[in-house]
Amino acid sequence: MASTIAEKILGAKVGKEVSPGDIIAVEVDAVMAQDGTAPLAIKVMNERFGGERVADPKKVVLVIDHTAPSNNPGTSELHILMRRFCRRHGCKLFDVGNGICHQVMVENGYPYPGSVVVGADSHTVTYGAVGSFATGVGSTDAAIAMMTGKLWFKVPEALKFELKGKFQNAVMSKDLILKIISDLKEDGATYMSTEFVGEGLKDMRMDSRLTVSNMVVEMGAKVGLMPADEEVMRFMEGRAKGTPKPELTFPDPGAHYKDEFTYELDKIEPMVAKPYSPANGVPVSELEGLEIDQVFIGSCTNGRLEDLAVAAKILKGKKIANNTRCIVIAASRNVYLEALKKGYVDILTEAGCMVTFGTCGPCVGAHYGVLGPDEVGLFTTNRNFKGRSGHRSSKVYLASPATAAASAIEGKITDPRKYLNMRVRDLEI
Amino acid sequence: MASTIAEKILGAKVGKEVSPGDIIAVEVDAVMAQDGTAPLAIKVMNERFGGERVADPKKVVLVIDHTAPSNNPGTSELHILMRRFCRRHGCKLFDVGNGICHQVMVENGYPYPGSVVVGADSHTVTYGAVGSFATGVGSTDAAIAMMTGKLWFKVPEALKFELKGKFQNAVMSKDLILKIISDLKEDGATYMSTEFVGEGLKDMRMDSRLTVSNMVVEMGAKVGLMPADEEVMRFMEGRAKGTPKPELTFPDPGAHYKDEFTYELDKIEPMVAKPYSPANGVPVSELEGLEIDQVFIGSCTNGRLEDLAVAAKILKGKKIANNTRCIVIAASRNVYLEALKKGYVDILTEAGCMVTFGTCGPCVGAHYGVLGPDEVGLFTTNRNFKGRSGHRSSKVYLASPATAAASAIEGKITDPRKYLNMRVRDLEI
Repeated sequence: MASTIAEKILGAKVGKEVSPGDIIAVEVDAVMAQDGTAPLAIKVMNERFGGERVADPKKVVLVIDHTAPSNNPGTSELHILMRRFCRRHGCKLFDVGNGICHQVMVENGYPYPGSVVVGADSHTVTYGAVGSFATGVGSTDAAIAMMTGKLWFKVPEALKFELKGKFQNAVMSKDLILKIISDLKEDGATYMSTEFVGEGLKDMRMDSRLTVSNMVVEMGAKVGLMPADEEVMRFMEGRAKGTPKPELTFPDPGAHYKDEFTYELDKIEPMVAKPYSPANGVPVSELEGLEIDQVFIGSCTNGRLEDLAVAAKILKGKKIANNTRCIVIAASRNVYLEALKKGYVDILTEAGCMVTFGTCGPCVGAHYGVLGPDEVGLFTTNRNFKGRSGHRSSKVYLASPATAAASAIEGKITDPRKYLNMRVRDLEI
Repeated sequence: MASTIAEKILGAKVGKEVSPGDIIAVEVDAVMAQDGTAPLAIKVMNERFGGERVADPKKVVLVIDHTAPSNNPGTSELHILMRRFCRRHGCKLFDVGNGICHQVMVENGYPYPGSVVVGADSHTVTYGAVGSFATGVGSTDAAIAMMTGKLWFKVPEALKFELKGKFQNAVMSKDLILKIISDLKEDGATYMSTEFVGEGLKDMRMDSRLTVSNMVVEMGAKVGLMPADEEVMRFMEGRAKGTPKPELTFPDPGAHYKDEFTYELDKIEPMVAKPYSPANGVPVSELEGLEIDQVFIGSCTNGRLEDLAVAAKILKGKKIANNTRCIVIAASRNVYLEALKKGYVDILTEAGCMVTFGTCGPCVGAHYGVLGPDEVGLFTTNRNFKGRSGHRSSKVYLASPATAAASAIEGKITDPRKYLNMRVRDLEI
């Protein structure tokens, strides 16, 4: 039978064909938890399952990223708990200063084509961009996956997104995914496998693809899968923790999709999602001129090298507006080191940005740029829910790093095409 | 009559000779407040003096540094209050991303030789290194200085510190001031002018001198003055907000000092101050091998270019120990930009440090590396009071950036001479 990507990966795991609705128990290739969720998973093991157990320490990864470094003694205590757990069980800890969990997981090859990965973080779906059936789970499920090495899944129905053409100047993959989410709405893909195919993918570097997969959960998707083409396989070299199976990541011709959509990349405009939903996307032209107090370029959505390169290209020789602050957080130490070498950090700092790396920071309202009462933020993050990034009365607009950087210069929402006269894929980074 | 530096500066201000114990009203050349104290000063104006008033906006400087960027909506609200105040009265605001108040004040020439500066922060004494009679005041006094342009002072008695010789390998001015404070104890200079003179100053760059003046308040001193020699005057070029009067910063021969001390720099060893007082200094040898959870290199005491240069020299090609985190915070954007250009940020990041700039961070336990229960820190800051930098049960040891960097490599307190075989003054930075 012709299968979707999700059906192929899950089917290979259980050694037989599977269909949407099937309930299967699957051996997971990695389980991840971060400082917001790992302490809960550890507590669940101790309080509900009679003690800590780890089936295979090589497959358990904890990452300190949500508040890294710690912003209060309570957070520090949770970090200490995670360090002790990893020391005791011999599993991998990415401590303060390594990076945001999803970036660190991808850089270190825990997800790879054909793998199944779960993480106690909703944006675990990011890894779909490397052809991994990866999804977010609760802390209890994460605890069970750590303890048993397995987890149950319902085989999802699937939606197909055919991507055609190329992005125009200053348009980024963030604009595409904001457009898609705004078309399908918050529940448009609930528990479904969203699968992105077509020549349009060729116009996206690895960094751009990860942004798209990262946000599929904002329309309820279980996973956001993409074929492991040459670009993915090149990226995987020397990283993959297991044997990549790229053949599982191309849907069979005639596979059944619940619905199919075609997006022409040429027609995508720079998008901005209004408060308080990522599905509130409108073309930037509708919001131009809206004053902003703080720009944030970073997060697991848009804190990668390409994102910083675009921001640096736009901000080179420019200054942030007086009424605006601009926070830049590289998603990992590796991204930051690359950005240092390329001179992006210098450019961004000269422009007036505050730059650091490896923390979720203001995205989760944890630290490093929390919004105050009535403040307006323009963030490259994935969620603009009420109160998430600061005071209940603050407002966050979501956009691409290009739109964020252009807007930082003017202190108000600005069309990035005013400052970037080239296609992002053509930018040398 | 022969006068001390303090007597000369204050005498020139009131146009007559002054003596210890005299109460005088003095026109101040600048008033500074930061995000911990400015909101209180603004509140005092409104609630006790019937409204906001600023005598001379050019002399009022607010700096957002203690928690920059903000770590919660409450802090953000205070930042907003400061922004509004500065906009309303036309006074200078150094917003998030500029730097720690004392570094920003010095870099921008608000204090200069012969000036009188007050700041609502106890480490305002830092500016004594450029020959400014500068001291910390409470928020109410700061409000009065902002409103009237004046403040009263009692002319202080003075202590003289004659500095001779040169530091040995890997010894820094931080070691000298820790030694002095440990000799005189917390109240050894209460309300006195501490004045540092002698050829030993020639062995200290501007950065080193600022460290010494910064910490005199830890023995109760009102100010920590140094002569404005050629090095200071060179530093002042193009910066000073008023006319420097270097002649006021050399004590008259025969000036009366309550006590005089001589320190031979050659005999100063690397020092570490044990919890919970900067006066608990002992030679590093007494504490070698003590395990540490977190190193912090930064703060208004030791977050300058020389400090980062020393840390980079020691950490180049090395890695932070597994059991230890290392946080580095450049004191200002300018320091960070210089450190970027010199490659120090690259080196420190490669070694495993987490690097940012322009916040007090863990020094005041605000964010960016707060210690958890029972954790041990080795900090280059000025205060290791109980609970200041984290949980009540955490412990902070104070040391120089050289000792901090060497200790980060080993994960335990380490003699910096093991890793740095040269004198700090001879290091090209």
